[in-house]
Amino acid sequence: MAIPHPHLSAKSLRWISDQYFGMNGTFVETLGAPPTPLEFSRLAHVSRPVIIKGASSSTGADWTNEYLTQAMGQQRVSVSVTPNGRADSITRGSDGKLYFTEPCTEQITMSELLGSLNDEANQEVMYLQSQNGNLYTNDFFTTGTSSTEFEPLRKNVPSEVSWCSRAFGRPPDAVNLWIGNHKSHTSIHSDPYENIYTVVRGAKHFLLLPPTEGWCVQEHLHPHATYERSPEDGRLSLAPSNESVPPVRWASVTDPHLPDSLPDGAHPIEVTLHAGDTLYLPVGWWHHVRQSHGVTIALNWWYDAEMAGGSWTWLSLLRGIEDEVATEEDDVNTTAA
Amino acid sequence: MAIPHPHLSAKSLRWISDQYFGMNGTFVETLGAPPTPLEFSRLAHVSRPVIIKGASSSTGADWTNEYLTQAMGQQRVSVSVTPNGRADSITRGSDGKLYFTEPCTEQITMSELLGSLNDEANQEVMYLQSQNGNLYTNDFFTTGTSSTEFEPLRKNVPSEVSWCSRAFGRPPDAVNLWIGNHKSHTSIHSDPYENIYTVVRGAKHFLLLPPTEGWCVQEHLHPHATYERSPEDGRLSLAPSNESVPPVRWASVTDPHLPDSLPDGAHPIEVTLHAGDTLYLPVGWWHHVRQSHGVTIALNWWYDAEMAGGSWTWLSLLRGIEDEVATEEDDVNTTAA
Repeated sequence: MAIPHPHLSAKSLRWISDQYFGMNGTFVETLGAPPTPLEFSRLAHVSRPVIIKGASSSTGADWTNEYLTQAMGQQRVSVSVTPNGRADSITRGSDGKLYFTEPCTEQITMSELLGSLNDEANQEVMYLQSQNGNLYTNDFFTTGTSSTEFEPLRKNVPSEVSWCSRAFGRPPDAVNLWIGNHKSHTSIHSDPYENIYTVVRGAKHFLLLPPTEGWCVQEHLHPHATYERSPEDGRLSLAPSNESVPPVRWASVTDPHLPDSLPDGAHPIEVTLHAGDTLYLPVGWWHHVRQSHGVTIALNWWYDAEMAGGSWTWLSLLRGIEDEVATEEDDVNTTAA
Repeated sequence: MAIPHPHLSAKSLRWISDQYFGMNGTFVETLGAPPTPLEFSRLAHVSRPVIIKGASSSTGADWTNEYLTQAMGQQRVSVSVTPNGRADSITRGSDGKLYFTEPCTEQITMSELLGSLNDEANQEVMYLQSQNGNLYTNDFFTTGTSSTEFEPLRKNVPSEVSWCSRAFGRPPDAVNLWIGNHKSHTSIHSDPYENIYTVVRGAKHFLLLPPTEGWCVQEHLHPHATYERSPEDGRLSLAPSNESVPPVRWASVTDPHLPDSLPDGAHPIEVTLHAGDTLYLPVGWWHHVRQSHGVTIALNWWYDAEMAGGSWTWLSLLRGIEDEVATEEDDVNTTAA
């Protein structure tokens, strides 16, 4: 189901993205050290990606399999399991239709997860991507207490990125640990958060598009499905959800690296983060993510986006998202109807 | 001549401004003391007006007629002269047509200016509004030297607002002195600058509209005219410029305070600054300005707007300004033609 843009013609979207590209190009600044809060405030105002070297704030962990296995012990953690490494992605079902497909979520130990990630012959793909504040949730910042599956690793991960919290004047909304390998791809999407993303082991490869080029990924409404494990043969299969589950708005471009998958007007930016590198990924930027160099481990701090001012209106306009703001015109129409 | 919006329908403009108003209302923050650079950086990111008490940075002057007359002596300064206090405004000519009309500019002494402003019976209205960096120009910041008509008052006006320069990471582009009285109104317009505006004597009354409500002031292209003084009788009259002078894009709403001059979708914000008060007037905000309490004196520091990121594209889109960014589509059309 295609989503018509409520306010902008294809020509207008193209004008906006050409204008933005003309002023910004594909420049990505690299800082050799963490910025001061004031420097970061300026960067967040510009809202373009920045790579920061030497800002890794993890402490006291070498992030080896041995360390993780010892620290986590028999604690079970939630991992995404798919047959193809495409969790939260547009996938064709056995009925030939395309679905937005969520992974099967299973609880296993760290030892089992790392064993699976190191087993190239494995027919299933695991990715620790629970992204629900699996290290620190908003509750931690508001009440000072909260428990998560990865509590044993909290001593290695500060709850805040100091220069970012000071720049925004608030703590993060969620802090997450990510563990995966080259078999997992994250499909292109944008988040309603400011994101500080640090790689502590392996390498992550981001393909980025600015909010102005969102039209290039062709969001559509897709019916919902989930990978389910068969009780009979134990295999995963795509199970369409029943019709009460609302369709999901998601990019139709499944792999922006494929030739001709993006239109001429797109100007993708490719960024690789190695261990110790941090990416500032501003709110609303589209990103597709891959991994390499064996087991890749990353941390991210999500900060609420600024809701005062015009940024949110701008991002909503670009995505063609209709918020329900009643206008007097609407009121008149309602009254008349 | 009406300007059709190249990209947004009336319905889209209305949606954007309703959305923005729904998220921001007409809130104007008031600070009791100057912000830190980091605090101001956050405020500039939000890009809404802020009133700052106790931030007046003028030094060693009481801004009385006596002080100004003594300090400036026989130095001549450029003042705007009009028959009605409407410089740079849409005015009807004797031919019945509407013109964007610039004032007559004349060079007089400070003593003559203040005498005129204190003479209620005067048939002409003077306003010192040269706004060309009459205290400090960009040259001052780039070369360290430059001269202006108001050099004798520089000792009373710092060249920079420290918290603002540090937040933006650059010095001002121009610093101006303004001297006028209740007879002068500044017609509603927006500037491509971040503006720090301090009143040091009297009071200024701003009517503000956010960039999202620019459609409410109905910009049109108007033919150009200037007030000229007749060599015969010495009177001012509106002289249409010859046709080689391009028409000027300007708001058709001449006084937004008049009933029904703004549409229902406008949410004007009225702000009064007394001596000692400072207004942060963000780039692109529409403002109409009046004065009261006798001779009103103000200082302003214009800082270049941030050109990186999306702000400029957003402001251009809202005003319907077409920059010439060639698209591949255009190239194809050109080749085909």
